[in-house]
Amino acid sequence: MEKSRFIALARKFNAVLFEENGLLSGALPLVVAGHTVGLVRAELLPLVRAASMFHVTEGAVTLDPALETPEARSAAMAELLQRWRTQENLVALRGWRNECYDVRASFSSAPLLKMERSATCVFGIRQYGVDLNGYTHHPERGFCVWIQRRSLEKPTWPGKLDNMVSGGLTSGLGLLEAVQKEAWEEAGIPEHLLPGIRSAGAVSICYRSERGLFANTEFVYDLELPADFTPQPQDGEVDEYRLMPVQELMELVCSPEFKTTSAPVTLDFLIRHGFITPNNEPRFLEICELLHVPLASAYSTGRLISGLQAIHG
Amino acid sequence: MEKSRFIALARKFNAVLFEENGLLSGALPLVVAGHTVGLVRAELLPLVRAASMFHVTEGAVTLDPALETPEARSAAMAELLQRWRTQENLVALRGWRNECYDVRASFSSAPLLKMERSATCVFGIRQYGVDLNGYTHHPERGFCVWIQRRSLEKPTWPGKLDNMVSGGLTSGLGLLEAVQKEAWEEAGIPEHLLPGIRSAGAVSICYRSERGLFANTEFVYDLELPADFTPQPQDGEVDEYRLMPVQELMELVCSPEFKTTSAPVTLDFLIRHGFITPNNEPRFLEICELLHVPLASAYSTGRLISGLQAIHG
Repeated sequence: MEKSRFIALARKFNAVLFEENGLLSGALPLVVAGHTVGLVRAELLPLVRAASMFHVTEGAVTLDPALETPEARSAAMAELLQRWRTQENLVALRGWRNECYDVRASFSSAPLLKMERSATCVFGIRQYGVDLNGYTHHPERGFCVWIQRRSLEKPTWPGKLDNMVSGGLTSGLGLLEAVQKEAWEEAGIPEHLLPGIRSAGAVSICYRSERGLFANTEFVYDLELPADFTPQPQDGEVDEYRLMPVQELMELVCSPEFKTTSAPVTLDFLIRHGFITPNNEPRFLEICELLHVPLASAYSTGRLISGLQAIHG
Repeated sequence: MEKSRFIALARKFNAVLFEENGLLSGALPLVVAGHTVGLVRAELLPLVRAASMFHVTEGAVTLDPALETPEARSAAMAELLQRWRTQENLVALRGWRNECYDVRASFSSAPLLKMERSATCVFGIRQYGVDLNGYTHHPERGFCVWIQRRSLEKPTWPGKLDNMVSGGLTSGLGLLEAVQKEAWEEAGIPEHLLPGIRSAGAVSICYRSERGLFANTEFVYDLELPADFTPQPQDGEVDEYRLMPVQELMELVCSPEFKTTSAPVTLDFLIRHGFITPNNEPRFLEICELLHVPLASAYSTGRLISGLQAIHG
């Protein structure tokens, strides 16, 4: 096989799929109200077994069906996580956010329970976000992309390079509204430019860190900006914006400077806009696949582990 | 789950993945020189067993390793297929083309053998093609896409609607050169417009018909055309070109008028250009996945059946 920096990157942000005896080994799907919503890794099973709110069998960790409502499930989960936070040494919970995440069977279905956001990777819960690529045709520098440097104060990936705008979903907002809100809050994109925002697809990856499993789906948007416009950090989450010629971005996206879990959005952008092509990238097709890991199918069929491992493992 | 015409279409062009006891049931991977290159369905196993050039075990159909060179393999295959063509009643071979297809371990590796093109779906060999979406911003009709009607003389999908340009790969030509060649031959795109052709990604699907299994990957290209340019059929493979406003195309792509195996390229185009969005399509994420079935991984790991079934089956 020919070497490729991009395929090395794509395997890095899908590390779980390529680990031998890694995170998936001995892990069990987490089932809530009949839906597979997460993945509990083997080392956590003793902790989970000790919590009376779960039934652990050979094939699954099932949330006690006696917890019939989202409210009852959320309350039990909150109590458990507070106990783990003080009594157990889980890396993920050191990043406690006091912010709840709605756990759902699929993106558009009703919430099954709420869970402290920092705990979602402990349980391998699917996560969704929005990303906005800002770009311009610069008269001297050519096709350029706006890249942010994340604030050093951010709890995750401080100081790393990132796409112009990226954020989680805000409860109650539609996706386009969520992108527009983040576009203003992070980059100061003024109202008259917002109608230029275009939906451009989605990327799905399966990343692991010392904190846990990230089964992430990003809804991707593009915005072409006037050459004389500069994004302005508004909310303290961004340190600076840099306009990057596409050749420079193709180098930097592969470097440790770039937030690993945002790199797929950039690779997808570079593919869609004709910069990474089958002519210049020998592993082009595998990269396309690794930007679209079949998370929806793997989670909805409940064949999370067998599905992901059978393809890549 | 909410209903969606687009997801129904995406399942249709990936029918194999959703069949219970269907094509994959009892099928065996075809292994050539250590590489999984195809899938032999259960009903063909008696025929394959009777041919001395294969070893059939519980887990695989292996081409006799004594056939050490591409030439020896191609000759043995040609002889077998000629025999089948006269003695067996295989639907696929009724479309005999007298045209050879290079079977490879992956897109960019050396050919392992040549095989009559109409037989590739009998063996579930991966196929590659190029597709060019032609579009324009029309002053009165808005964003429009050029769609061809295939000639009634074509051996496959006669009279169906199809993308502006679509073709197989021509031996010895790079991908971009192949698109440019087809763009002239099918649509009469003149030389001065060819530099506008942009690589835009790839789609992979897993289709079945009465002829067999189509594990198809299309390299996708876009070309924005001047509003006053009309493609001209050149080579008798196209009956006519129609300029279609995007709303009309979104209807027609779901109809039986449209070539099913070309529809994924159109859906991908409509997603990348912001017409099918998570705001207007409830099953958006599943559609993105079904445009990028992990064929490269499933074939290269040899976990063709378990891999595809574990995810979707």
